[in-house]
Amino acid sequence: MKGTYEKVVELANRRGFFWPSARDVYVGAPAGFFVYGPLGLRMKNKIVSLWRREIVLPEGVHEIETPNILPIKVFEASGHLEHFFDKLIECKRCHSRFRVDKLIEESLGLKENLEGLSDDELMRIIRENNVRCPNCGSTDWTGIKKFNLMFTVAVGAEASEPNAALRPETTQGSVVEFRKSFIVMRGRLPFILGQVGKVFRNEISPRRALIRMREFQQLEIHVFFDPNNPNRIYREKLEPYLNYKIRFLRKEDRKTGEIIEMTAKEGLESGYTINPLITYWLVIYQKFFNEALKIPLERIRYRELIEGEKAHYALAHWDLEVYTEDLGWTELVNNTYRTDYDLSGHVKVSGNDLRISDAEGKKILPHLYEPSIGLDRVLFHELMLSYREDEKRAWLELPRYLAPIEVAVFPLMKKDGMPEKARQIYKGLIKEGFIAFYDESGTIGRRYRRMDEIGTPVCVTVDHQTLKDDTVTIRDRDTMNQIRVKVIGLPEKIRRFLREDISIEELQD
Amino acid sequence: MKGTYEKVVELANRRGFFWPSARDVYVGAPAGFFVYGPLGLRMKNKIVSLWRREIVLPEGVHEIETPNILPIKVFEASGHLEHFFDKLIECKRCHSRFRVDKLIEESLGLKENLEGLSDDELMRIIRENNVRCPNCGSTDWTGIKKFNLMFTVAVGAEASEPNAALRPETTQGSVVEFRKSFIVMRGRLPFILGQVGKVFRNEISPRRALIRMREFQQLEIHVFFDPNNPNRIYREKLEPYLNYKIRFLRKEDRKTGEIIEMTAKEGLESGYTINPLITYWLVIYQKFFNEALKIPLERIRYRELIEGEKAHYALAHWDLEVYTEDLGWTELVNNTYRTDYDLSGHVKVSGNDLRISDAEGKKILPHLYEPSIGLDRVLFHELMLSYREDEKRAWLELPRYLAPIEVAVFPLMKKDGMPEKARQIYKGLIKEGFIAFYDESGTIGRRYRRMDEIGTPVCVTVDHQTLKDDTVTIRDRDTMNQIRVKVIGLPEKIRRFLREDISIEELQD
Repeated sequence: MKGTYEKVVELANRRGFFWPSARDVYVGAPAGFFVYGPLGLRMKNKIVSLWRREIVLPEGVHEIETPNILPIKVFEASGHLEHFFDKLIECKRCHSRFRVDKLIEESLGLKENLEGLSDDELMRIIRENNVRCPNCGSTDWTGIKKFNLMFTVAVGAEASEPNAALRPETTQGSVVEFRKSFIVMRGRLPFILGQVGKVFRNEISPRRALIRMREFQQLEIHVFFDPNNPNRIYREKLEPYLNYKIRFLRKEDRKTGEIIEMTAKEGLESGYTINPLITYWLVIYQKFFNEALKIPLERIRYRELIEGEKAHYALAHWDLEVYTEDLGWTELVNNTYRTDYDLSGHVKVSGNDLRISDAEGKKILPHLYEPSIGLDRVLFHELMLSYREDEKRAWLELPRYLAPIEVAVFPLMKKDGMPEKARQIYKGLIKEGFIAFYDESGTIGRRYRRMDEIGTPVCVTVDHQTLKDDTVTIRDRDTMNQIRVKVIGLPEKIRRFLREDISIEELQD
Repeated sequence: MKGTYEKVVELANRRGFFWPSARDVYVGAPAGFFVYGPLGLRMKNKIVSLWRREIVLPEGVHEIETPNILPIKVFEASGHLEHFFDKLIECKRCHSRFRVDKLIEESLGLKENLEGLSDDELMRIIRENNVRCPNCGSTDWTGIKKFNLMFTVAVGAEASEPNAALRPETTQGSVVEFRKSFIVMRGRLPFILGQVGKVFRNEISPRRALIRMREFQQLEIHVFFDPNNPNRIYREKLEPYLNYKIRFLRKEDRKTGEIIEMTAKEGLESGYTINPLITYWLVIYQKFFNEALKIPLERIRYRELIEGEKAHYALAHWDLEVYTEDLGWTELVNNTYRTDYDLSGHVKVSGNDLRISDAEGKKILPHLYEPSIGLDRVLFHELMLSYREDEKRAWLELPRYLAPIEVAVFPLMKKDGMPEKARQIYKGLIKEGFIAFYDESGTIGRRYRRMDEIGTPVCVTVDHQTLKDDTVTIRDRDTMNQIRVKVIGLPEKIRRFLREDISIEELQD
């Protein structure tokens, strides 16, 4: 039986949310690259808008855009040249290459995370279990090699060697532009930059549709703050949330898997969440996933990473994970306290003083806290978590405001002026700014099902009565309930239905 | 004396519209990469929104997003591996490399376009004029070499050679996904895909700020149509515009520079604009630049390209150019009739039948017409064309709806409750969805000038009278005229002012 994962991938492919790039023409095109069709792209844009409305705007984030290609020196300074690699092993017989942890996991059917293990430990597991090459069956392996995950390029006509790289995170753009941005925007610490952008990682084994891709998109904010005064404004900002419960899987609870709920106050007082600024952002991002993206709290946790798992730049590191039955707990946001690791690296490599002056003229090299959202993973989880089916139909119970098509308009039949009337209503809705869709082909039941399947919250149908009294039926995606309302006032009703958690019956005239 | 170009670049850099990437930290960072600061990014996003509202939505364009990295085979098929190069020449003494046409133009102070000349003709000019190496002064040159402008990358752990490239245009993504998209979206010809995306070109000599970059952004639509029936729906669509005058610099008028105004009807009847579909799009894009982007007609022309200048895939090719005093005529949109050049290439290289079925079941390999906007160039031209200055101030007379900050709110003085009241108004405007800015620092005159300089259409000032009768002054960026209006109803007034071409006096209560 197919699981939700397979069903969503199939639906996405068939209806145009997303599909693998170039494969329709070039069968062997490399994996890990995806096309967003119109439905997926609109939904993605809506998630970005939501993030801008809920995070960027109210928090005074300065959104910038830095290039995808950056000088190689930037990644020398950031440590990515040295530390950003996967462990790779090669079969000596057929020369196939594999990511070591994945090879072991798949050969032995393990479910645990092997990221924290040393090369020696990994090699021991391979030898003791007689792990074979999935390609040719040999057990003759090379040692473990580092495979850097950055794509490098040669910029300029005189470059004979790569002198630049595609960024593997948007962070370095913000770090390199921090001082300049701070001055241009007459900044004061804490000072927040934000970026929406593509990133590129030469994954050895891209897999699981939008989960592990080679080109994907991040929504990042970069909170620069004075380490000697991290709490300016944040103590006050945190005040309303002191009793808000943050859900953690602490490192000491790894074995039991127990999630503890810690109030912001407890996090602060115990020192676990370090300072009011970091505590505040842990609260805000959990709230964003729960309240704006509508993911149930019991499916959200912050997993504390241990040494060996943490990114090379991280002093503290929690993955915000979301649970699905098919994929288990998956990281959707990387939350890291990077200290001045990045800025110091650039000071060292460039020889430039990157400190900025605070209000009292004191020179400061700020610390950095960064929550980084994997946008494609969020979209994929929204689809998986909203997928429903029964004997009659499949539908996506998406948050209404994230639906790629907001309203569909149908004539009940293709005669008696119904199509004309329906098209008129459709055009009126487009004019009002709705993402609307008109369809007159096939039975009405089939048309409803096509819209249900892509999560369209409401369908408007023009029937015989419409022509008499200018009323239409409107139908709720989730309950399939229908009510009859006047055409006049329809846009306001639909707008309210998309925005608020109300039943369709509440729209009755 | 500095020209507008230099002033705009300086302003953009100082106020955070855009600036060169990574240069604040790494002095030698490669040229041709830019950062968009918050002001530039918002303005860019507004241009994209305008294009979506005026083109994508009303024309039924299916917007998709394809990856930046595509298999190298795609560019073998598209001809980019063979044809997409610049001509390069190397100094035998110091090994510096130059783009041949640029070397000649700069050495001899030429203003003409040398793109159409053969290698022999270019070498003859170099020898006859004794062109010297700008670096070491030598006249000892290699022959002319081809330098491919694509950045290539190696994808996957087993790739020892580049097997993919960063796309130099978004087109190939749409072409490779055409058949799949057409089926998923139950398409009918003409069928239009659209993309907003980054593209990458390894320019030998990036220059002129946002004009010739190595990483830049395109707004493209890809109109696929049946070559045997190119006019379905388009004859009807063109009807209202038959007397609209399209401005052309025809190839035979190159010498005189005379722009002729040809109605759509004349274009069609003379065969010059090929068919109703292409004619329609020439009209629509001229109208978009003139009416939506507010560029005066006399600054717009379609320049017909001749053999040698045309892209390798183009049967017909017009550059929509815009005139500025500083840069002359500059291409902002590449309009090409690509025939089935691209699809045929992919059929040949992939061995796949990429024809689709029309309504009658006939198999068709569609033709492609493509207007491709250079987004960064549009933004830069909007800034140059709106730059104004007099003895007292400099300001940007941007179309109001493109302004990166829509409204500023000031307290006249920092006392008597004015800041509190102003902040309350500011927050109300934010809530209403405006991009608003609050400022209380410095004299009121200085604050106005700071907003004028970045093109903020309207400033709201809270003064003593506000506290008595709940009225504020609102000030027009262009005339500096002020009127007094009630606080109640302010959002509607500002919304109208941003949207319509009215004077501030028309907002009087």
